[in-house]
Amino acid sequence: MSADPPSTLAASSRSIPRGTQHRPGSQGALRRRNSQRILQALMARGPLTQAELSRQTGLSTATVSNIVKAMAEDGLISTAPTTSSGRRALSVRIDGRGAVAVGVDFGRRHVQVVLVSLDHRVLAADAVELPLGHDAEQGIDTAARLVQRLLDEQSVSPGAVLGVGAGIPGPIDRRTGTVIHGAILPEWVGINLLARLQERFGADVFVDNDANLGALAQVSWGPYQHAQNLVFLKIGSGIGAGLVLNGELYYGHIGVTGEIGHATVAEHGVICRCGNRGCLETVASTSTMIDLLSHGRNAPIGTEDIVRIALDGDPAALRVIDDAGLAVGRALANVCNLLNPEFIVVGGPLTGLGGILLDPVRRGLLRHVVPVVGESTDLAISTLGSRAEALGAATLVLQQAELPFV
Amino acid sequence: MSADPPSTLAASSRSIPRGTQHRPGSQGALRRRNSQRILQALMARGPLTQAELSRQTGLSTATVSNIVKAMAEDGLISTAPTTSSGRRALSVRIDGRGAVAVGVDFGRRHVQVVLVSLDHRVLAADAVELPLGHDAEQGIDTAARLVQRLLDEQSVSPGAVLGVGAGIPGPIDRRTGTVIHGAILPEWVGINLLARLQERFGADVFVDNDANLGALAQVSWGPYQHAQNLVFLKIGSGIGAGLVLNGELYYGHIGVTGEIGHATVAEHGVICRCGNRGCLETVASTSTMIDLLSHGRNAPIGTEDIVRIALDGDPAALRVIDDAGLAVGRALANVCNLLNPEFIVVGGPLTGLGGILLDPVRRGLLRHVVPVVGESTDLAISTLGSRAEALGAATLVLQQAELPFV
Repeated sequence: MSADPPSTLAASSRSIPRGTQHRPGSQGALRRRNSQRILQALMARGPLTQAELSRQTGLSTATVSNIVKAMAEDGLISTAPTTSSGRRALSVRIDGRGAVAVGVDFGRRHVQVVLVSLDHRVLAADAVELPLGHDAEQGIDTAARLVQRLLDEQSVSPGAVLGVGAGIPGPIDRRTGTVIHGAILPEWVGINLLARLQERFGADVFVDNDANLGALAQVSWGPYQHAQNLVFLKIGSGIGAGLVLNGELYYGHIGVTGEIGHATVAEHGVICRCGNRGCLETVASTSTMIDLLSHGRNAPIGTEDIVRIALDGDPAALRVIDDAGLAVGRALANVCNLLNPEFIVVGGPLTGLGGILLDPVRRGLLRHVVPVVGESTDLAISTLGSRAEALGAATLVLQQAELPFV
Repeated sequence: MSADPPSTLAASSRSIPRGTQHRPGSQGALRRRNSQRILQALMARGPLTQAELSRQTGLSTATVSNIVKAMAEDGLISTAPTTSSGRRALSVRIDGRGAVAVGVDFGRRHVQVVLVSLDHRVLAADAVELPLGHDAEQGIDTAARLVQRLLDEQSVSPGAVLGVGAGIPGPIDRRTGTVIHGAILPEWVGINLLARLQERFGADVFVDNDANLGALAQVSWGPYQHAQNLVFLKIGSGIGAGLVLNGELYYGHIGVTGEIGHATVAEHGVICRCGNRGCLETVASTSTMIDLLSHGRNAPIGTEDIVRIALDGDPAALRVIDDAGLAVGRALANVCNLLNPEFIVVGGPLTGLGGILLDPVRRGLLRHVVPVVGESTDLAISTLGSRAEALGAATLVLQQAELPFV
């Protein structure tokens, strides 16, 4: 791994880097780079005031104002008067010129797709169910057909696709671009996802794991757009966290981060798919809840059933969720003691439980966290529903794709 | 807390910001900012080749070369031919013009002081013992007198002091600059350290906790100068970690990070000074080791005694260290699963134990970490000895003080 700052894995179908026409270090190159920073901030965050653009890009307000004026004259962006904190301001919006970013979320039993515009609107979204244990080829093919259908419905030409972002529920080794052992999708392990998607979609592709994308969605589509330090915790068949640290997704050394599902919570507990024993996932994942709650029933229940029977007041479901929440909260306490995040957002298929899930998580957290850290941490349920990861995948494209203009 | 990126707490005795003579966004302002980036990289990292300067600052090699040439003509830096990876290169060194940075490490029973030059040499270092339970005033006074003695011995005038960095063994609330409850120095809790030091030293002051400074020392004075993601773990009277993430010290929301000493390892264990039960510190700190090993002796032993008797093969000491190391390793596994660091460096007063300490830490770590993460993490003992934290404190000054020239 090089000493360069880590960035999301990306394969580009374009071989010639853009923007080489300017001498590096020249005024022209500087202006072009600053213009790109402004466009990328608008793509990643949606419409912003000039003052917000200055904060997001680190450019002076004078520089922002000059560049916004020039780009508005070129028709790249549009501006409109607005108010911010009660004062007059100028809202700046990118003119997407019909270009779209595609976000794909591969799950254990579904594919979710979103199309978004460069000015940060969701144009279309849909999901398809897949059989448990489907192989990667089947998942990729289903996704590609779903994307094509949405593009057709929106009358978007293939040339207008800026790129495809994709998320999978498992760690990706950033040194090789392969899915790592321990993924929730064992059938996908060892596959070079980036190369396969690149080939199938014929577009620039960016991949990441689902928890990272859930975190990214919170700061780009959710209510945490100004968050500097946020932990997104996904509780599903697996339990994983995505970390936004200092305003950016954090990747660590080889890209395997946020694996709090493998915190040991029972020294001599059951064997986990990672090879260790008594990991958090073995006591608090939806798979474990399903195992526990299916006992004595005629047929195994599904994840939706957990939510339904708990909301109906089923005592066994409430107890299983309470125990799981306490264990998750305790693991989160370690995360807070280490990282002191401002926000923790809980996502995944159980978010419909609301306080039934969040209350025991909060109790477990507060019981084990350093008090001053606990007091300064905001814990909430994700409001982005099942689209969070696909929206985060689309954000990868908005943040990292090469710009079609400038 | 504002949305600005966090930076080390600093109080400046200068009221007029420098560099306001240039219009922001102008070519002159740009050149001055780039010159400062180059000088700051040289101050923070020591002599660098032009290629390394380019990587450190993000400036193009052409820009670096132009600015280096101009600053060399002005006498601000000197250059010398060298080789890098077998190729000819130009080594660039700052001309410190006699300016020094002061680093102070406040401990429970000592004050350590270092003087360093801007070209990254240690000019002088010394330490003084203090009684257990000394108050903040006594510590600050002792430090100030020790600093003055070292400055006198080196014939450094007070005007040549660029700033004073200081570390304390406890968390600091970055919202208020006060020492937080839970610090190893209970007598210091609630004190606004920054204001007090500022007053006593009459210089720019920067403060941080000792584990953060230990981490900073590894990447600025130790063998990890190119590390992007490094965890420094200090095992002493307390247990805390300093985190270098994406090449920078990480501070989180309010500045209380790396508190792995308060990971719960025994649900119904003894009460910890933080108010929780069974924290890692209650089973693996040097205070706990001293309690355990003093049992049945005529007089309580000291931290140095732990090292001495363990190296002599004392079975009780070896067992106590082994148990502590395993617990620390298990807590580190959670850190690795979450942050996937490239390096973990263990520091503190027990480093003289070498493998006697490191081996059980490694066993505990590998037993509980996600395998692919464990395989990619390098675990080692700090080579900076008892000076690490004071050196890191001096780095705060080199990184953040306003430059006396340019």
